[in-house]
Amino acid sequence: MAEQKLPTRSEDFSEWYNQVVLRAEMADYAPVRGCMIVRPYGWALWENITAALDSRFKATGHLNAAFPLLIPRSFIEKEKSHVAGFSPELAVVTHGGGEKLEEPLVIRPTSETIIGHAYAKWIQSYRDLPVLINQWNSVVRWELRTKLFLRTLEFFWQEGHTAHATAEEAETETRQMVDVYTDFAVREAAIPVIPGRKSEAEKFAGAEITYSLEAMMGDGKALQFCTSHNLGQNFAKAFEIRYLDKTGVLQHCWTTSWGLSTRVVGAIIMVHGDDQGLILPPRLAAFQLVIVPIYKTDEEKTGVMECAHKLHKELVRAGIRVKMDEREGASPGFKFNDWEMRGVPLRLELGPKDVAKGSVVLARRDRPGKEGKTFVPQQGITSAVTQMLEEIQKSLFDWALAFRKANTVEPADYGEFKQAVEKGFAFTWWCGNNTCENSIKEETKATMRCIPLEQPGGSGKCIYCGQPAQEKAIFARAY
Amino acid sequence: MAEQKLPTRSEDFSEWYNQVVLRAEMADYAPVRGCMIVRPYGWALWENITAALDSRFKATGHLNAAFPLLIPRSFIEKEKSHVAGFSPELAVVTHGGGEKLEEPLVIRPTSETIIGHAYAKWIQSYRDLPVLINQWNSVVRWELRTKLFLRTLEFFWQEGHTAHATAEEAETETRQMVDVYTDFAVREAAIPVIPGRKSEAEKFAGAEITYSLEAMMGDGKALQFCTSHNLGQNFAKAFEIRYLDKTGVLQHCWTTSWGLSTRVVGAIIMVHGDDQGLILPPRLAAFQLVIVPIYKTDEEKTGVMECAHKLHKELVRAGIRVKMDEREGASPGFKFNDWEMRGVPLRLELGPKDVAKGSVVLARRDRPGKEGKTFVPQQGITSAVTQMLEEIQKSLFDWALAFRKANTVEPADYGEFKQAVEKGFAFTWWCGNNTCENSIKEETKATMRCIPLEQPGGSGKCIYCGQPAQEKAIFARAY
Repeated sequence: MAEQKLPTRSEDFSEWYNQVVLRAEMADYAPVRGCMIVRPYGWALWENITAALDSRFKATGHLNAAFPLLIPRSFIEKEKSHVAGFSPELAVVTHGGGEKLEEPLVIRPTSETIIGHAYAKWIQSYRDLPVLINQWNSVVRWELRTKLFLRTLEFFWQEGHTAHATAEEAETETRQMVDVYTDFAVREAAIPVIPGRKSEAEKFAGAEITYSLEAMMGDGKALQFCTSHNLGQNFAKAFEIRYLDKTGVLQHCWTTSWGLSTRVVGAIIMVHGDDQGLILPPRLAAFQLVIVPIYKTDEEKTGVMECAHKLHKELVRAGIRVKMDEREGASPGFKFNDWEMRGVPLRLELGPKDVAKGSVVLARRDRPGKEGKTFVPQQGITSAVTQMLEEIQKSLFDWALAFRKANTVEPADYGEFKQAVEKGFAFTWWCGNNTCENSIKEETKATMRCIPLEQPGGSGKCIYCGQPAQEKAIFARAY
Repeated sequence: MAEQKLPTRSEDFSEWYNQVVLRAEMADYAPVRGCMIVRPYGWALWENITAALDSRFKATGHLNAAFPLLIPRSFIEKEKSHVAGFSPELAVVTHGGGEKLEEPLVIRPTSETIIGHAYAKWIQSYRDLPVLINQWNSVVRWELRTKLFLRTLEFFWQEGHTAHATAEEAETETRQMVDVYTDFAVREAAIPVIPGRKSEAEKFAGAEITYSLEAMMGDGKALQFCTSHNLGQNFAKAFEIRYLDKTGVLQHCWTTSWGLSTRVVGAIIMVHGDDQGLILPPRLAAFQLVIVPIYKTDEEKTGVMECAHKLHKELVRAGIRVKMDEREGASPGFKFNDWEMRGVPLRLELGPKDVAKGSVVLARRDRPGKEGKTFVPQQGITSAVTQMLEEIQKSLFDWALAFRKANTVEPADYGEFKQAVEKGFAFTWWCGNNTCENSIKEETKATMRCIPLEQPGGSGKCIYCGQPAQEKAIFARAY
């Protein structure tokens, strides 16, 4: 238990991240290079993420289904941008049941092709549209540089796939999902996000338009929180997804796809953590509150534990996710540190004096030390806890937004731009030209994250080439 | 929409099954041989199955996690029975990212090996025990003869994996999960099951003891509903899963694993269906009730739809899963047939006369024709529906149990035995010898399904060899 001190976020953010993920038992390295094991404490967070998203997907009319893991190699080759984008990343199954396969199969890197094949079979008429399906699964992409949660060979995600009768409906769906994800990011993950459009270079292999949400991590770098793609008729043409319209004419469908992955767990860690470890947003935390009973004698223990169990029961009944830490042989101080590392938003301390006074101590994880401690009467504990959890949720969001604002610069010139992307986001006019985008990337390692949907209006000069520019874009180094 | 008539269960049970699965849009064939697509209507049933099981797993102290899909080939070879059992069924990944891999990887056929590897790392001391983890995922086994839900190359399931300090605790866990599954089968799936022990020949590759639940399908054949394995120290020794006990001595752990798959969807279809299609048990059905509004004129439509929406809202608020069938251009008769095919347990018919009288017609799926129809006042509709759903749930179970009893024989001699397994289960004394088991299989196609935990006591003579036998066993042809 005598572990080395955690590196601070300012001295080594990357190593702080790795250590926190391992020590909080969120995930572990798998025996296969680049794969991860999501441990129960990390998976409980992911389960809460999936529940929050799944209810939003269902409320917007989507149904879940399951398409196979294995895709014929030839399917990937049917859409020409898609094959170019995904070929280098494929895991290929060449043998099955002891024999060499006639056609190699790939493990899905994403499912547009196999779902396109099914939709072509299922969709006949305009009456069958729209088709609104989502699936929760894992996909495999052969990444070279990996990091737990942020980039792994196999990752867990959801992928929505929809088919529509018109271009307008497909675009409306694509944008609706941007709104759904934004609502999730803000209200559940307490992460401020910038919804915007990707450049031609950065968009999904096979999409007409890719939208993404971009978030700023605790080191000022950007992370793509999720994406929503308008696929136009690209996959509909490659897979012959067609319908008879009301006038009896055969038309190609318009399709979309959209996804959010376990990267988001990494984002939550990097946005909200501090030098003591994780800070989990109450709405998603596996445990929202941990009870640490404090006693020395057996007599004290009896009184404290009786009271602790009573409070535990009351809080659980109110729907609060509570962990009771009854470990023997671990001191309260050890337990405090342990749960701080794991980022439980609220700690309830209960000693013999508290029992006598009919009160408890509530300690907020987001406000270390005395500042975050309050004496609260046991009477009415659930409403006090509920309110404090809401305050923590809000305060985490406010803090992250303030941090992003403090580290976002609207540079006056390329010199300022280069300084800005050293520590955060540059929000700047860009001509839209791939040449400028590439040069900026080479010279500063910053990529065009997105052209935010919210624009100031007017026009300006491209930060790189000085040519007229109609839109402002976010540039940053990114995960 | 003019489809051929469904074959009846008695004339061609297998083809009835295939047709129902496809027509009710439960699942479809995937482009890769032997793989399936679980369509939204089938997946909604599976989601209800997972929810019902997951809450039971959590209530018994288990946590969910996620282990990788890809396993080094060498892992499978570490436990000698395990490799013999699974080698012929492996899907092998030989290339990744465009290059040949140094060591081939297999797609998990089950996860004992990779989880064993992780447990060896995580478990140090008796304080770390027990470890109680479950995961929901899919696995791949290269089956030759496949059938939707019942046997597919990729299937969806949960696999629990636990590690304990003593043999007793491992056996207690293994048996506890038999009880958990039995409770699920009886109360949720309305399927009577026989918990019992597998023979040496039929047990899991690497287990000391395998327990299974056996259920009788609508054609009298057996289906293994799920399994629970006591793995003894076999995997603990192969993967060095060890702990320091209280006296400081290094000991091997005792492990278990247990699983239930999408086969259960097939079981629900085969146990409860009839010649009109599916009959889904109310507690698991995607929709428990479908509202079919009936009208001819626009004026009638206005009144009926207003009332239908009011009832819909009231039923949904009470937590009932309701589908409103508002399809234009489809007659009530067409809709009745369609939802009968899909097995919705209860239909609410609402016409202008019902609106005028303040009543509705409730039609039970499990009692076709007039017998199953009741006029019910709109006032208090939710309690009437709730009660009727409970009655249907109970009646499906009772019917299935009566069917199993009617088709289970305790044969007096081998002649009767051979007749019994033509149409159902034979419950008979067996000497426990593999030679008899094999001969019976060759001569009758019936396998030893399980030695039921509930035994009559006493002893008898083996149905095949006539030697003394201590236990009675279930023999049947099986899926």
